[in-house]
Amino acid sequence: MFMHNKKLMYTVRVAEPNPGLATLMLEQFGGPQGELAAAMRYFTQGLADEDVNRRDMLMDIATEELSHLEVIGSIVAMLNRGAKGKLAEAAEEEADLYASMTSGGDSHTMSILYGGGTGLVNSSGVPWTAAYIDSIGDPACDLRSNIAAEARAKIVYERLINVTDDPGIKDALSFLMTREVAHQKSFEKALYAIPANFPPGKIPGRPEFADKYYNMSQGEGDASGPWNEGEQWEVVSDREMQMAVDGGDGHATVEMDAKAGKAVEAFMSRTMSDPESDPVTGADLGAGAGAGRTTPIED
Amino acid sequence: MFMHNKKLMYTVRVAEPNPGLATLMLEQFGGPQGELAAAMRYFTQGLADEDVNRRDMLMDIATEELSHLEVIGSIVAMLNRGAKGKLAEAAEEEADLYASMTSGGDSHTMSILYGGGTGLVNSSGVPWTAAYIDSIGDPACDLRSNIAAEARAKIVYERLINVTDDPGIKDALSFLMTREVAHQKSFEKALYAIPANFPPGKIPGRPEFADKYYNMSQGEGDASGPWNEGEQWEVVSDREMQMAVDGGDGHATVEMDAKAGKAVEAFMSRTMSDPESDPVTGADLGAGAGAGRTTPIED
Amino acid sequence: MFMHNKKLMYTVRVAEPNPGLATLMLEQFGGPQGELAAAMRYFTQGLADEDVNRRDMLMDIATEELSHLEVIGSIVAMLNRGAKGKLAEAAEEEADLYASMTSGGDSHTMSILYGGGTGLVNSSGVPWTAAYIDSIGDPACDLRSNIAAEARAKIVYERLINVTDDPGIKDALSFLMTREVAHQKSFEKALYAIPANFPPGKIPGRPEFADKYYNMSQGEGDASGPWNEGEQWEVVSDREMQMAVDGGDGHATVEMDAKAGKAVEAFMSRTMSDPESDPVTGADLGAGAGAGRTTPIED
Amino acid sequence: MFMHNKKLMYTVRVAEPNPGLATLMLEQFGGPQGELAAAMRYFTQGLADEDVNRRDMLMDIATEELSHLEVIGSIVAMLNRGAKGKLAEAAEEEADLYASMTSGGDSHTMSILYGGGTGLVNSSGVPWTAAYIDSIGDPACDLRSNIAAEARAKIVYERLINVTDDPGIKDALSFLMTREVAHQKSFEKALYAIPANFPPGKIPGRPEFADKYYNMSQGEGDASGPWNEGEQWEVVSDREMQMAVDGGDGHATVEMDAKAGKAVEAFMSRTMSDPESDPVTGADLGAGAGAGRTTPIED
Amino acid sequence: MFMHNKKLMYTVRVAEPNPGLATLMLEQFGGPQGELAAAMRYFTQGLADEDVNRRDMLMDIATEELSHLEVIGSIVAMLNRGAKGKLAEAAEEEADLYASMTSGGDSHTMSILYGGGTGLVNSSGVPWTAAYIDSIGDPACDLRSNIAAEARAKIVYERLINVTDDPGIKDALSFLMTREVAHQKSFEKALYAIPANFPPGKIPGRPEFADKYYNMSQGEGDASGPWNEGEQWEVVSDREMQMAVDGGDGHATVEMDAKAGKAVEAFMSRTMSDPESDPVTGADLGAGAGAGRTTPIED
Amino acid sequence: MFMHNKKLMYTVRVAEPNPGLATLMLEQFGGPQGELAAAMRYFTQGLADEDVNRRDMLMDIATEELSHLEVIGSIVAMLNRGAKGKLAEAAEEEADLYASMTSGGDSHTMSILYGGGTGLVNSSGVPWTAAYIDSIGDPACDLRSNIAAEARAKIVYERLINVTDDPGIKDALSFLMTREVAHQKSFEKALYAIPANFPPGKIPGRPEFADKYYNMSQGEGDASGPWNEGEQWEVVSDREMQMAVDGGDGHATVEMDAKAGKAVEAFMSRTMSDPESDPVTGADLGAGAGAGRTTPIED
Repeated sequence: MFMHNKKLMYTVRVAEPNPGLATLMLEQFGGPQGELAAAMRYFTQGLADEDVNRRDMLMDIATEELSHLEVIGSIVAMLNRGAKGKLAEAAEEEADLYASMTSGGDSHTMSILYGGGTGLVNSSGVPWTAAYIDSIGDPACDLRSNIAAEARAKIVYERLINVTDDPGIKDALSFLMTREVAHQKSFEKALYAIPANFPPGKIPGRPEFADKYYNMSQGEGDASGPWNEGEQWEVVSDREMQMAVDGGDGHATVEMDAKAGKAVEAFMSRTMSDPESDPVTGADLGAGAGAGRTTPIED
Repeated sequence: MFMHNKKLMYTVRVAEPNPGLATLMLEQFGGPQGELAAAMRYFTQGLADEDVNRRDMLMDIATEELSHLEVIGSIVAMLNRGAKGKLAEAAEEEADLYASMTSGGDSHTMSILYGGGTGLVNSSGVPWTAAYIDSIGDPACDLRSNIAAEARAKIVYERLINVTDDPGIKDALSFLMTREVAHQKSFEKALYAIPANFPPGKIPGRPEFADKYYNMSQGEGDASGPWNEGEQWEVVSDREMQMAVDGGDGHATVEMDAKAGKAVEAFMSRTMSDPESDPVTGADLGAGAGAGRTTPIED
Repeated sequence: MFMHNKKLMYTVRVAEPNPGLATLMLEQFGGPQGELAAAMRYFTQGLADEDVNRRDMLMDIATEELSHLEVIGSIVAMLNRGAKGKLAEAAEEEADLYASMTSGGDSHTMSILYGGGTGLVNSSGVPWTAAYIDSIGDPACDLRSNIAAEARAKIVYERLINVTDDPGIKDALSFLMTREVAHQKSFEKALYAIPANFPPGKIPGRPEFADKYYNMSQGEGDASGPWNEGEQWEVVSDREMQMAVDGGDGHATVEMDAKAGKAVEAFMSRTMSDPESDPVTGADLGAGAGAGRTTPIED
Repeated sequence: MFMHNKKLMYTVRVAEPNPGLATLMLEQFGGPQGELAAAMRYFTQGLADEDVNRRDMLMDIATEELSHLEVIGSIVAMLNRGAKGKLAEAAEEEADLYASMTSGGDSHTMSILYGGGTGLVNSSGVPWTAAYIDSIGDPACDLRSNIAAEARAKIVYERLINVTDDPGIKDALSFLMTREVAHQKSFEKALYAIPANFPPGKIPGRPEFADKYYNMSQGEGDASGPWNEGEQWEVVSDREMQMAVDGGDGHATVEMDAKAGKAVEAFMSRTMSDPESDPVTGADLGAGAGAGRTTPIED
Repeated sequence: MFMHNKKLMYTVRVAEPNPGLATLMLEQFGGPQGELAAAMRYFTQGLADEDVNRRDMLMDIATEELSHLEVIGSIVAMLNRGAKGKLAEAAEEEADLYASMTSGGDSHTMSILYGGGTGLVNSSGVPWTAAYIDSIGDPACDLRSNIAAEARAKIVYERLINVTDDPGIKDALSFLMTREVAHQKSFEKALYAIPANFPPGKIPGRPEFADKYYNMSQGEGDASGPWNEGEQWEVVSDREMQMAVDGGDGHATVEMDAKAGKAVEAFMSRTMSDPESDPVTGADLGAGAGAGRTTPIED
Repeated sequence: MFMHNKKLMYTVRVAEPNPGLATLMLEQFGGPQGELAAAMRYFTQGLADEDVNRRDMLMDIATEELSHLEVIGSIVAMLNRGAKGKLAEAAEEEADLYASMTSGGDSHTMSILYGGGTGLVNSSGVPWTAAYIDSIGDPACDLRSNIAAEARAKIVYERLINVTDDPGIKDALSFLMTREVAHQKSFEKALYAIPANFPPGKIPGRPEFADKYYNMSQGEGDASGPWNEGEQWEVVSDREMQMAVDGGDGHATVEMDAKAGKAVEAFMSRTMSDPESDPVTGADLGAGAGAGRTTPIED
């Protein structure tokens, strides 16, 4: 069960309203690397995890992320507060309101649609979607996803810190950023506390394909490094050896019963193209008056 | 530049059409853990990576994933091939077509909307979205994201293998699954080939918050493990110590100029709720004839 | 700040796994009328509400909805638990796993993609989106939105109760359903505790249009009721009186400077259609061999 | 059946092109509170409503909203008209076109992607989605949703009026705004013309939970008002009394047959974390060269 | 201005309720090739078209498509009517309701979420999105888009006819299908009534690239046809001649000022991978206990 | 199988970084008319096409579009390169970074979220979605869709050319634009190489409806042109003749069995509105203090 206390996890002191900056902050409120995504990621994992210890950790961190969501949301609310009042009360000339509302980012949407509130959107106004959450119900995968997510969130906070000169905001952001580092460390510990976590799952890889490195991008700049070099790797650069690596003919086939076969054949024949034709086309019709138009762009 | 050869990277031999199974396979074609997501993830990273060696690796693997997309797409196409012909040619009675089209998964949509083709949707018919891609332009983050993505893709292939008894499909899937393991290994090598990759970014964490573990979820089941235990961790369980951890009052504040302040005040006063009121409400109006209805559900 | 206790707000006792039923329950987990939508709706409103009393209520109810999200999510997790284990461990024949995985709803996606976990999707597998949340930062609007949302959630729970014969699930659902009724009552009280809440906002309507009822749909079945009858309404049925109700010419116009005017003219002339022409078209070209095809469908 | 007359419902007179302002207007064209959402909301309700009188009203208002969509769309078209011509004809220097195209809002997308046309997007360029529509097929719910929707639309128009100084646009907007007020009144009448409309649906709430108010958010600022005070409410503030309110143990359980139980157990054991371990982690590996980095941000 | 008459454009006679079939029909109600997409496509084009004649046609057809939307929606409503009543009134045992609700397609969502109403979703339950509409504000493009859209809609109706044996539905569908053919013919005429419609736009193509056909996919199956054969085409098969076709080095470069250059260099150096390293990785750590696992899948 | 060469298909020479311009270019990278949409459109068609010749063409062009995606992506990467370095390294004052990051378009999101990388979004930051792809598995439809798509892509490139004065970018864009023209020509040839391609599909239209033109939009401006004039068309302007064109009553009906009928009746009666009532409503309650508010907006 969740409970709430009116104190924030971190005090928010904003120097002055700034709807443009508020928009940027939304990236960590309703954006893909933001706190709602984090909270829901761990919460949904926790609900179904069979390991009660890990489940406890997931719920601890999910709950903390909800508390972070409240902190970043409060920053957004404070940055928008002046604009909210002015627009609702029509406290300025239309032109002034228009100007302040289009001062940066997508703050115009935040004002017109959300009235200076805290929409669950990212800095471009794109609504949050659960498509951001990549949990799949396997701990050795989900913990890796969490590690990556925390790393990403850390960097987005770092970027926000770099563009903000309001000391109160900077202070709160640096707390939130630091916590992502701490969470990453916890998830790392939890991953490696699963004795055999690589490869994830139960079915082993097929040895004949597990150590190949297919050099698919060739030309000047072809490089090697520990990811394709060393005794565990065999590099395959010969294009012929990259095709149909099973030794088959590289085609796709299916056995169909007679009825299906006939239906496909009928379809095929009905929609067949005649490679010998040289048909007049719609483009030919349409190019009539534009015949002379394929002249160089420089003209 | 990309090039194409008509041979598949792996030969696809499907025993018989099965639109229901085709739907499941779509998870790795147009689903969040599928091959398009993988290819686009690495391709977009590769385009902007400043390190030419890593860039080569990203392009190698992106190109291989595109080739995998073709393999899994060919499986889907073969599984749908019979249904496609029958529907297009009306080669069966309506009732039979209806039955075969609703045989499992979301195959009805694959038939009606995509005509037995290979829609870029997942197994529930949800169109692929770039919201699945979590690249953020920092190598130490993106490589972690890639590691996690490969782990997830491995497991989804494993699940598909577990529900398929067509040997040709199983064979191709096990190739694809194995390659995800190999890619994960490459990305791991690439991550650790960046000498200092943790924490990602440039701004260090604040020591006073970096090693705290906030025990936010309490009660029977509270657990400890390497993620919150040991010398690097200090567990904070006291609820008071979890609030306003900066030592402030835990409130959110903003300084506003007089004009903004007055506008907010006007808005506040206009929309203020009167806590002393006991208003008649719409629910009161609507409950009129339903007065006796709040009886237990068992009645 | 949020806190969590490991006890659920309501005990969940599920009689037996049922992935098909789990899918239906998702409607209240990751669906538009579900608990995440409710929690986020009130939480985001609470963050920015200037009235501290109402804000307290919004946070109370938001927090309770999060606790409900945990209850309904736990129901889903329990219903999926058996399928999760079997698929991950390949504990059944492929054909049996395939059958159980496609037993109803969109349970195939829940298994293949989410591994029997609790994806934030609705019963059709559509990921949750913040587009479901209609808060706009005006209390007299947002409270009405909340009232409507609670009413809708109540009905969806009622429908779920009607299709479930598992007594433990029915019991938990009836608790959740009842709470939506209670929340609606609170929001009604809060709305009418704003002394002047209709019309919302500050700008009054224009009297000449405020009491008109435009009878736009005519024909047999034209009806009257309190929504268009009585002294406050004037019904306008004459089509001419429904057009250009400002008394103007009903056209859209804009003043453009000379440069813009000329550019538009050039564009217009370049893309003008010749109404006197009788061009041969692509359809004409393509109909060649299909000339006799416009015969009745009965043929 | 729908019919159309070339006269607009309200004459549109725009003083001069302004792509930035056009973008804001899109909020009511292709945005969540806009006219398409309104029209489709009532139209889809009308199609399936069993009450012919209410159905008539829904079709009346749906049709009017389509006519409003045409009015607001015409405003957008007029505001974009100059930019459209200039871009299509390259009637200005590149730099001038670039400047005018990025003059505010998301007008750059309106120009590049929609060519100065009227895309069905909101002011941030987000495509309209039926996820905005919350109809659920129960009149007592849908009418409440409509009431709320009209209230929201009224406010968004008010905000647009506040930022526009073009008298012709202001005039048309005030008409549209007023009609939302009138529609809200009609929907209110229709709701209360259903004698027993609260609670919606058929299943009554459970009395033991219907009048509780759970005080989930506590601390300084805890408030009371008509939403939790008075004889119909019992406030529950004791945290223990908020948990497992059914009197159970607050756990989630499911009965599984032996096979499922064994599978889950196998899964559990395979992915179990070892709480006693103190594993070296990826973060440990990656922190190598960055050991000294956890210094304060002020450094 | 739009008007409405209560008579449908085509009478709808449904033989019996069938929620599974209703789901399929949704493809033409709220699906990408459906009537809302058609109506909005032409309506938005019409709003901004500078050619008054073409504009009239667009509004004629847009209005007819809205009338079609009403016809197909009415079919859906009739097919769902029985299920709607039964679920709302709990008129059957839970198990029977559950069974009928999961009888095919995504009818479970239509029942639980939409209560048997007509949600604006496709046959997989995916909400309609304006991303389906591809209008870009150029008549020579938009008319081609319309031609293609009508062709697609025709085929989807044909597929629905093929799976329906209800004569009343078949009858109405064949009307709707026929009208798509008629609309396509109109749009074809309108396209070719623009004298020079190919290539669209004003800037001519560059002759050195306009007639090349790059043979990018090679291998067995390489084919020729009128699309790459004949005097207007020059086929380029030599891979070297497909690269850097401008004669440059095929690299991407940008000039940066010193400050930017230094910043990029710093970033590069900080995140550089060391190609000579052979780091221990997270996968190495995780593979510990799973060392022997890379055995063939057949084992 | 796909292969890659490190040389671009066209050399990219960008004069100087410009994040605002980069945003516009995204329209052809991750936008609806962009190169990913093109590549995936043809690739998915090619996978399932039964005609091997056409399939070869689809794969040729799909592969070329992937190569174009790389070119336009490289332009974006170059334009963002300076901003990327500066933000990551905090190489400027916060205020300067903030200013440069909000310099135009949605570049703020590109910086904060994607770190100056190449997100798969359009110029408004909307993530790419497969909803942009309209392939339906019928060649006579899909080729028309491709023709239209190439026409649209041509125009979007033309618009980008018109707003760019960087000669290197202009040069690359004009190559990409020209190729769209060439592709359109190929698809036109392929369409007309299907001997009978109109109407698409197998079921002929019904003659009684195939040649009607319903004049649904009437009033001043009613026009005629080849789309509704000439011997193949019969214009129907009489409103009565536009309704129930089958000659029926224009109603929607369904036969229900007794049980369903009774359930519907019960539902109807429970939710019936009383047209004779004149209920007090929520709006009446809420208008109390606002009674005098319906005064003109001019006040």
